Amino acid sequence: MIITRDNRLHIEQLQTDESIFATQNGYIGVRGTFCEGYGTNGLRNGTFINSFYEEYPYRYEENLSGFAQKGQAMIHVIDGQGIEFYIDNHPLNMESCDVVSLHREFHLYGGYTTRTIHYKTPSQYEFILTEKRLTSLEQPELFVVEIDLQSLNYSGHVEMRSTVQQPQFSNTLSRDPRIGKTHNESFILRDIHISDDYGCIQVQTKHSKLEMAVSVTHNIPVQYTHNDKNITATAHASLTENEHFTCRKYVIYTSSNYHSNYVTANNILRQQILKNQSTDYFEQQRQSLTSFWKTCEIAIDGNERLQLIMNYNVYQLHTSGGLDSRFNIGAKGLTGDGYEGHHFWDTEIYLLPFFVLTNPQKAKTLLLNRYHNIEAARQEALNLGHTRGIKIPWRSITGRELSPYYPAGTAQYHINSDVAYAVIHYYYATDDMSFMLKYGFELLVETARTIYDIGHFHNGVFHIHEVTGPDEYTTCVDDNYYTNSMAQYHFQFIVDFYDKHASLLKSLITRMQLSDQEIKDFNQAAESMAIIYDETLQIIAQDQTFLSKEPWDLEHTPSSNFPLLLHYHPLQIYRKQVLKQADVLLSMFLLDFEDKTIMEHSYDYYSNITTHDSSLSKCVHSIVASALDKLSVAYDYMIDVSEVDMSNTQRNTKDGLHLANLGGSYMTIVYGLAGLRIKPDRIILCPRIPHDMNGYSFTIQYRQSIITISISDTIQLTSTNTVDIELYGNAITLQKGTILDYPLG
Amino acid sequence: MIITRDNRLHIEQLQTDESIFATQNGYIGVRGTFCEGYGTNGLRNGTFINSFYEEYPYRYEENLSGFAQKGQAMIHVIDGQGIEFYIDNHPLNMESCDVVSLHREFHLYGGYTTRTIHYKTPSQYEFILTEKRLTSLEQPELFVVEIDLQSLNYSGHVEMRSTVQQPQFSNTLSRDPRIGKTHNESFILRDIHISDDYGCIQVQTKHSKLEMAVSVTHNIPVQYTHNDKNITATAHASLTENEHFTCRKYVIYTSSNYHSNYVTANNILRQQILKNQSTDYFEQQRQSLTSFWKTCEIAIDGNERLQLIMNYNVYQLHTSGGLDSRFNIGAKGLTGDGYEGHHFWDTEIYLLPFFVLTNPQKAKTLLLNRYHNIEAARQEALNLGHTRGIKIPWRSITGRELSPYYPAGTAQYHINSDVAYAVIHYYYATDDMSFMLKYGFELLVETARTIYDIGHFHNGVFHIHEVTGPDEYTTCVDDNYYTNSMAQYHFQFIVDFYDKHASLLKSLITRMQLSDQEIKDFNQAAESMAIIYDETLQIIAQDQTFLSKEPWDLEHTPSSNFPLLLHYHPLQIYRKQVLKQADVLLSMFLLDFEDKTIMEHSYDYYSNITTHDSSLSKCVHSIVASALDKLSVAYDYMIDVSEVDMSNTQRNTKDGLHLANLGGSYMTIVYGLAGLRIKPDRIILCPRIPHDMNGYSFTIQYRQSIITISISDTIQLTSTNTVDIELYGNAITLQKGTILDYPLG
Repeated sequence: MIITRDNRLHIEQLQTDESIFATQNGYIGVRGTFCEGYGTNGLRNGTFINSFYEEYPYRYEENLSGFAQKGQAMIHVIDGQGIEFYIDNHPLNMESCDVVSLHREFHLYGGYTTRTIHYKTPSQYEFILTEKRLTSLEQPELFVVEIDLQSLNYSGHVEMRSTVQQPQFSNTLSRDPRIGKTHNESFILRDIHISDDYGCIQVQTKHSKLEMAVSVTHNIPVQYTHNDKNITATAHASLTENEHFTCRKYVIYTSSNYHSNYVTANNILRQQILKNQSTDYFEQQRQSLTSFWKTCEIAIDGNERLQLIMNYNVYQLHTSGGLDSRFNIGAKGLTGDGYEGHHFWDTEIYLLPFFVLTNPQKAKTLLLNRYHNIEAARQEALNLGHTRGIKIPWRSITGRELSPYYPAGTAQYHINSDVAYAVIHYYYATDDMSFMLKYGFELLVETARTIYDIGHFHNGVFHIHEVTGPDEYTTCVDDNYYTNSMAQYHFQFIVDFYDKHASLLKSLITRMQLSDQEIKDFNQAAESMAIIYDETLQIIAQDQTFLSKEPWDLEHTPSSNFPLLLHYHPLQIYRKQVLKQADVLLSMFLLDFEDKTIMEHSYDYYSNITTHDSSLSKCVHSIVASALDKLSVAYDYMIDVSEVDMSNTQRNTKDGLHLANLGGSYMTIVYGLAGLRIKPDRIILCPRIPHDMNGYSFTIQYRQSIITISISDTIQLTSTNTVDIELYGNAITLQKGTILDYPLG
Repeated sequence: MIITRDNRLHIEQLQTDESIFATQNGYIGVRGTFCEGYGTNGLRNGTFINSFYEEYPYRYEENLSGFAQKGQAMIHVIDGQGIEFYIDNHPLNMESCDVVSLHREFHLYGGYTTRTIHYKTPSQYEFILTEKRLTSLEQPELFVVEIDLQSLNYSGHVEMRSTVQQPQFSNTLSRDPRIGKTHNESFILRDIHISDDYGCIQVQTKHSKLEMAVSVTHNIPVQYTHNDKNITATAHASLTENEHFTCRKYVIYTSSNYHSNYVTANNILRQQILKNQSTDYFEQQRQSLTSFWKTCEIAIDGNERLQLIMNYNVYQLHTSGGLDSRFNIGAKGLTGDGYEGHHFWDTEIYLLPFFVLTNPQKAKTLLLNRYHNIEAARQEALNLGHTRGIKIPWRSITGRELSPYYPAGTAQYHINSDVAYAVIHYYYATDDMSFMLKYGFELLVETARTIYDIGHFHNGVFHIHEVTGPDEYTTCVDDNYYTNSMAQYHFQFIVDFYDKHASLLKSLITRMQLSDQEIKDFNQAAESMAIIYDETLQIIAQDQTFLSKEPWDLEHTPSSNFPLLLHYHPLQIYRKQVLKQADVLLSMFLLDFEDKTIMEHSYDYYSNITTHDSSLSKCVHSIVASALDKLSVAYDYMIDVSEVDMSNTQRNTKDGLHLANLGGSYMTIVYGLAGLRIKPDRIILCPRIPHDMNGYSFTIQYRQSIITISISDTIQLTSTNTVDIELYGNAITLQKGTILDYPLG
């Protein structure tokens, strides 16, 4: 499975492809820039370390109480990609040469990328430069790049300069709030030294005081030199026509937020790389992906492009995180600095559903990140006036709330229930009681406490005021359906789990000062939760006043005015019935809304007023459309979703891949077409095939079983263990190792 | 009538008294600082020119579409107050000497202040320094300070240094959003020169490019010198025991935002001051106030302090503005830099009611300021997505919206109807049809258009979504009663006026492209305006969801946590039933709500949940309490209101006087106790006397009549012209020149 892209040389294409060809492993991420650079146009270097950030003060013209006071932004770190070639001191790059052709490949089975570029110098010398690179899945600190320079018609001297250098920033200012701010503070140099066979830089950030080290070596003799910022390794060669010059470069990244002693970069280099020079890291990478592809490959019969992109999407998901509980997954993973590297509720609602079914260990690690940051979330709750409980930050790196605009940030209290939802579904899918007792139940109760605190009973109904749901085009409302319904589910689970496992929870209950009364309160709130059903429209209302607002005139809104948030004052948007993204429908999917008539009316109603300006939206519409057997629509949405990055449909893939949307694309198949739902004691399936495909198949992990699900003329199911499932509402036992063939519903 | 204050030497008292003893004339304002300074502690100099501001960029961490991008702040200008004395090179000031006593006076009839300070130097020499100063009401450019230095036990040389200097700023940073930002950019010097009998400085601001000039002269021989920033005039004298040294200093301010040629400062100085050296400006000032006091003095029988403060309050109101239609009145007038010198809807709702009844010309000038800035307001409407109409900025200096926090700023669309309300009441009180045809009706229609645009009909009811009413502790709500009821009144007036005066309006209607349909739309909106009445509580609801929120626990809120906005995250505040200031009740006062039962229930309900954290609140509660014959409560609020600055009850009088509250204190008598209301064709009165006073009297202008109203055992009314009024619901004709004696109701 290989993604290929040819001759995309326009600056926007180059930036987009930097994201598409970014390779990551949960610790480091390297964008698909050219190792030789683009010339002097100041493009970003694009190497990231997970949660490696710089701090800066937030400034408000009106600085109200409780506002976040400090920002954190994931920064471009010391960069080891650079390998430049000089022909008679003339650099080989886009700026100085003509490009005859450019060809790129992303090898999904191999876990590496290649790039072949054909340059013609002003003196008409032609070269083919091939780069092959990987971010190691076995050794998270390792980035490898292999270079091959072939002369087509040149004979003479060639100089290679391989660099490890401080990031260089362009000072482009953007007013798009979705773009990461440019932080061009330089690092403080701690050490820089070279030897015959390696070079090493250690630096510290100025404000966050994080430290990192980079060590570099090459498989050919090079001459290391350095100044006070950068290391350069130089090699000289003589080439004749059709002769190749090759070099492999190994770069090791370590950092104080991951390594107990970050200066071990050099030790790793010496012990892992220099001592094992025969290791073929590309082969190692391929092997480490074998089991992943065995269980995670998605087959789609009848649409090869869709199949390829789907697998690209799950590959990028798989490599984006779950390595360590100190790390979460940013909105762009490690593929770009969009949203400043912050993670959001995307992790729980759009990424966990993938990890829970494909790699429960990673799912657990991601949930543990919320637990790891529990004290920061407790501080945030205090900050918002709660005396108990925790408030999960809306956007964060280290657990602190970083949202400087509360109406579409901090006000999204639903994130507490989103985390709870992910905990519950991880538990249902894995039966991991040990996790629940050690971390899960505590997260559930602490997040529930703040939600309960913002609600209150009025005339016997539990109302939650002044919150923002997933739809950020309507903020600070009362009784947002998504928030209320998710809280209801959240509270109800706590009550049931407490009732069922009180004895196991004893010490935890004491430590948390959880009383029977508090459980009763949760129960009462769940039972009397305000849910607003509109009799006339036969739909669920998004909030108390939403349906009395004026609908936005989407029909007469010029397409250049989307996303609306970039073109209209928030008051204009908030005043109208218009959605950025699925809100009621997202809850209907997640909580498997029972009444299909109301669901269909709601789907029809909200579909008409949803802009899908968020990349978190169409996947939900696809899933709900599947549930309503609107398969053609579901399929169209699925295509749109799968193409978001590959076709740059949101026009900002350059800032990084839309990780949540990648998760969404996975969900459109598994939760959408196949109708998979995770229930307390079973999974249910309800597979359908849209007209535009012949079938599809995928594999999931459920508790102790690996279950393969193939849907074509019939449904074929296999499992590595005997397991009970529900198919089209019928209870079925899958016998270990035998294929169950079932008629398509 | 003299306000006196003794021995208030603590830094906070000094800063508070700078505001209390500030003198202003609508063009310049000078805070009551010490001419000799306080020493080196960097206090602000405190001279202001109306609407003389510096610009600075706003920065947002999330910069959304339509947000105000530039701030403007009224700045401290070149300052001509300084007169220092040196005894053997030792300065006479608080820092270098002991203060034996300090006595200050504000002469309300005279329109000037005095300050007498008794210094004892470290060498035990004692001096009494007396300063007498005024800001001229006849010559708005003129500030006069007269100094008298008396030696008590010193014989020897004394040096006087009189200065005109660039403002000096302390770099105190505050997180209180109500405080003006410190802008310590220096001016660009354009010219500085001296002669034998004067000195002159011309400067320009760096960013707003406003220019100003200051010229100075003295009535005694002095030696002028200057450097590149300041002018100093030096005089030497020999004093013996009990001998006095006196000097009078004249300072002329001109500026490019008022004078066609701002460099005329020197001309004015030469033509007005130097040529008329015998003029007694203090006597001139007293005379210019004669007619003001004749018509505006308030008498309160039974509470001398209240009477004195009331008259101080109306004095400061009278001198705060209305000089020129290019100027409005900032929230602090020209008495301090709080709120950055911005004006708000305070002008129309809290100040105009005073000016309309005491100085209709000034009232008109203030309304014309909105007309003067109509194109800026049109731009603001476009900015907010309106294709027609104007949006009056919530806070402004030159007509541009300066609010960087829209939920409690830009979202207050009611300001459009507030301006309309003031126009209507000015018209009712003056019958000034010429104003209506030239400016008033246009303002009414243009402001109505944007209000109409944000509303819409839903099930036959006209709803207005996503606005903030006067109460800033509940923001961005739907169908705020104040907003809706004021819009209803606003629309209805337009419809009636249009119907009645269509022929007069012909050319205006054409120019404004005002169609019959638009008038019908206004009419329909007014007739079907959403007004939410709660059957159970028998009150008017503040908005669609307000009454379902949880009440704030005021009882258990520590008094140190007020104002709430400084201690709680906005989400916490907005989520609850708690008011910063009167909202429903303000409308009930302004629109003279008919049903007294609903009014009383509403009063009781909202009184219990109102913090009065805004100084715009208690006056309204006092007025409504009067209307409900809760006279003891009305009186208590009246006392509170009158004391806001005099007793510094809001703890921020140092930033300037609370102008709106001064207007409010006037209203508690006239609109409160006397029950005055301005109706289309008459005024109505409904006088009451609380137990704690014996009576009160005041004078108003109504159309062509000056009417004096005295309430004691009976009501005595006189008018300069025959006029029809309504007293306790009875139509009465006041005959020109005869006293009408009427029993107290």
